[in-house]
Amino acid sequence: MKIDSVDFFYLAMPEVTLEADGSQDALLVRVAAGGHVGYGECEAAPLPSIAAFVCPQSHGACQPVSASVLGRELNSPADIAAIAADVAYNSMDVLQAAHTFSGIEMALWDILGKMRGEPVWRLLGYRASHGKTPYASLLFGDEPQQTLERARDAIARGFTAAKFGWGPIGRGTAQQDADHFVAAREALGGDGVLLVDVGQIFVDDVARAAERLPALEAARVVWFEEPFHASALASYGELASQCTSVRLAGGEGAHNVSMARHLIDYGGIGFVQIDCGRIGGIGPAKQVADHAVAKGITYVNHTFTSHLALSASLQPFAGLASHVICEYPAAPKALAVEMTGNHLLPDRSGKIHAPDAPGLGITLDAAAVRRYQLDVELRVAGRTLYRSPSFCD
Amino acid sequence: MKIDSVDFFYLAMPEVTLEADGSQDALLVRVAAGGHVGYGECEAAPLPSIAAFVCPQSHGACQPVSASVLGRELNSPADIAAIAADVAYNSMDVLQAAHTFSGIEMALWDILGKMRGEPVWRLLGYRASHGKTPYASLLFGDEPQQTLERARDAIARGFTAAKFGWGPIGRGTAQQDADHFVAAREALGGDGVLLVDVGQIFVDDVARAAERLPALEAARVVWFEEPFHASALASYGELASQCTSVRLAGGEGAHNVSMARHLIDYGGIGFVQIDCGRIGGIGPAKQVADHAVAKGITYVNHTFTSHLALSASLQPFAGLASHVICEYPAAPKALAVEMTGNHLLPDRSGKIHAPDAPGLGITLDAAAVRRYQLDVELRVAGRTLYRSPSFCD
Repeated sequence: MKIDSVDFFYLAMPEVTLEADGSQDALLVRVAAGGHVGYGECEAAPLPSIAAFVCPQSHGACQPVSASVLGRELNSPADIAAIAADVAYNSMDVLQAAHTFSGIEMALWDILGKMRGEPVWRLLGYRASHGKTPYASLLFGDEPQQTLERARDAIARGFTAAKFGWGPIGRGTAQQDADHFVAAREALGGDGVLLVDVGQIFVDDVARAAERLPALEAARVVWFEEPFHASALASYGELASQCTSVRLAGGEGAHNVSMARHLIDYGGIGFVQIDCGRIGGIGPAKQVADHAVAKGITYVNHTFTSHLALSASLQPFAGLASHVICEYPAAPKALAVEMTGNHLLPDRSGKIHAPDAPGLGITLDAAAVRRYQLDVELRVAGRTLYRSPSFCD
Repeated sequence: MKIDSVDFFYLAMPEVTLEADGSQDALLVRVAAGGHVGYGECEAAPLPSIAAFVCPQSHGACQPVSASVLGRELNSPADIAAIAADVAYNSMDVLQAAHTFSGIEMALWDILGKMRGEPVWRLLGYRASHGKTPYASLLFGDEPQQTLERARDAIARGFTAAKFGWGPIGRGTAQQDADHFVAAREALGGDGVLLVDVGQIFVDDVARAAERLPALEAARVVWFEEPFHASALASYGELASQCTSVRLAGGEGAHNVSMARHLIDYGGIGFVQIDCGRIGGIGPAKQVADHAVAKGITYVNHTFTSHLALSASLQPFAGLASHVICEYPAAPKALAVEMTGNHLLPDRSGKIHAPDAPGLGITLDAAAVRRYQLDVELRVAGRTLYRSPSFCD
């Protein structure tokens, strides 16, 4: 079958703030091929991502993503890989292209799965979808007491693992940060899994990041996430060599397989966190999962938006029984909840599963999509290159 | 002084083809601050780059580039670095941001130089602007005979160095490629500097790239450029270890300093080629030049568009007397020639110099800019976020 159309839907909350919450908007992608419809989601700035799909060509290696997608054959996983390779080559100089293609690629897997009546994880070669333990993703409080209360709340909601991120960490002294780590550990008790995410705050400054290691290790933090810029491999490598019990985590910024592989090989991370909505979709993420297995480190999804994105993010490591922990949007904004018709809820043992259903196993809620959709129009030289389509049931 | 405005001008030839010629369009940036006006140029897809400047915010780490630029203080190189750091942090998840900011950053240096009456290279700490030897950038012919004729033509035009790129190389057998290398060397004679650029054709396949090494070395090729994807550090490193006389070159795809540093440190390249219109501007490029000097390898500019971009690209290594070779757009399209009012021409010894004039030392030709400008309009939710301004003298 041939890829007939690709449509983008820019959804946003009525108010989008500067808080570290990626669920305030979404770029939904709908692909139609051979009578089937598939969905994906870019974890990306919507406007530049749409622009990268429709922009006029600048030269042979700076073509719009559409040039390598529309009209292509889609009958097998190999076809998806071939399209991905062409996007990488033909849109080599369109930096945004990887983010744009990520949502499209998910939708291609969704279509292929629906066509074959198979879940995507099976198309990837897995025989089973193993349950994952969700962690609550929370922001550090302004004061340690707030951090403690948020951790208690997560425990009360049934979580056994919690990740604290951003907030004041790295902006004051190492001792101030340590007080937050102690508070979180106190609330979680001895058994709770504690994870810390500092959102690139140290840029590439190994010494400042290393100052936090003793307190992180005393609080038995399992991973120390994104101390540095996504490309700062050497800084990761230096810090990793100074860790005793805590392991570094990173990879959400990877927009191709090499970036993620190099964080493992040169950066010495112990947990590789992949956002399928940025790395180019599910296929590249599976390659990273394979590499993680080969290197004896742990693959984790990065997901902060809808359950469509969540399902896509679980597929690449669904079959890895020993890669147990998963990111689970604990308090997403209404649009991220409402845009899908079904949700991935914990089973009786608290585990999350990639759906055992054709494709990604997620339906869309057309009324919600329409409710949150923003109209977008891109015009160049008097021609309309893009105009938001309407979302039909 | 404060940054008052940033305007983008999307220029394009009436027809833009798929040939490997980046001079078919241009994204000109004009910045106004404190009564001064500066210019820069993004080497990027214009539409997504403009979108990354004006897009609505998605969350705290996914803000438009404008949020970190407009209204900021601009009085010193440190101010430019501070703005760049904020763009990297606040637009962390806007992949296109680095390409967008590159042209802005150049314009900030241009303004600062004009304000102080100093060329940018002096603001970077250099005492002199040393002449560079331009090489002619040419495409391989379909047949070796065409390659030979193109090399003869370059010699006839006075070039002593020529780079052949793209075309059939890597698409057929190693022997077919070898015939092109022999033809180019024959035409250049024993003294001509021969460079080869294969534009990422081997993606990450070290074995296929390595098959070409004996013929490259027999033809005394100085550098073997971009065998792999810009992020494929491990492939670069493996191939570099198999080179005897030829050195690897790469870096034009780097959109931050770390990427370029890692190509040197992990990829083993001998020539680091930086496009100031992609890496974030002149400041980051100077950091790469410093690293190249520290590591004993050679810095080269990557420039395929106008003489505004060329001037910007020469600044970061203008003061490095022993880094002699430079890319010089040998046959740019009319818009790239006409858009500037002055040009960087070879001196009597055939050398190209970064101008000894305030800022970047390049004037714009207003009539030409207007002649090639495409009108762009970006609308979201009924609001016009961007509308092409008109270019005044």
